[in-house]
Amino acid sequence: MKHAAAASTSGTAHQVSDTTLRGFVGYHMKRAFNAVQADLSRTLAPFELRMLTYTALVLIVDNPGLRQSQLADAMDMERPNLVVLLDELEARALITRDRVPTDRRAYALHATLAGTQLCKQAVGAVTAHEKRLLAGIDDDTRAALIATLRQIETGHAKEESA
Amino acid sequence: MKHAAAASTSGTAHQVSDTTLRGFVGYHMKRAFNAVQADLSRTLAPFELRMLTYTALVLIVDNPGLRQSQLADAMDMERPNLVVLLDELEARALITRDRVPTDRRAYALHATLAGTQLCKQAVGAVTAHEKRLLAGIDDDTRAALIATLRQIETGHAKEESA
Repeated sequence: MKHAAAASTSGTAHQVSDTTLRGFVGYHMKRAFNAVQADLSRTLAPFELRMLTYTALVLIVDNPGLRQSQLADAMDMERPNLVVLLDELEARALITRDRVPTDRRAYALHATLAGTQLCKQAVGAVTAHEKRLLAGIDDDTRAALIATLRQIETGHAKEESA
Repeated sequence: MKHAAAASTSGTAHQVSDTTLRGFVGYHMKRAFNAVQADLSRTLAPFELRMLTYTALVLIVDNPGLRQSQLADAMDMERPNLVVLLDELEARALITRDRVPTDRRAYALHATLAGTQLCKQAVGAVTAHEKRLLAGIDDDTRAALIATLRQIETGHAKEESA
């Protein structure tokens, strides 16, 4: 019975109504982040990095000796997923994984010289990408955006915060 | 040679420095969205929905006769991933997939009565979740946040917009 209505629409996406979802801040966050991520992926492609390998590399460079478990927590990732990602960085000789003498199950992560250099270049490219992507947003708006996002992230936007 | 420094840190995440990443708005967006998504997952669990099945169901309810290809575009998803998701909704008899008579390769999506009812309940729960999560944020700040996010999403924050 609904076939007639269905057949009258053609195959383009901008006819899809997302009015209900637009009522949610979370949906706006997801949509905006998708746009940032698409641009970021293009920016990182020349370095053969993706958002997650880039994030891991930056954190390892900034925190020499970081444990895998700490990195998993910092990236909100399950450890098995992180291991796949670290395998990739290690295979490219961008990082090393060393057993921690005092804890046989723990691995300490360090960036190699090549990893540190690639990281520096990638951070530079991502800085330029964001500058371009947010050029129309003034400093006050940018600061307000970050402040609100931090409030949400830390749970301080909640009614009953602990 | 770096083992000594590594061994001096213990296994908790808040010691990890993310100063470099905090310089990027995209990182703040991702972190805040992770917090929203974690809360959303808990909210949707009683309905046996996840963020993506919920999003798909809402869009199907709001757009009767929606094509799979339109939904994939609207959700920024690859079609094979979407198919897995629709299989799940169909197996639970929340949606139907009907061949489009005028286009043999196309499927039109409709919510069943059960799907429409579950959707309504889930939207109510998600509304309450967001209200709780953002209770500390006033209406002006909320509106400003959405406006900035939309600017980023639509590319109007860019230097050279088309």
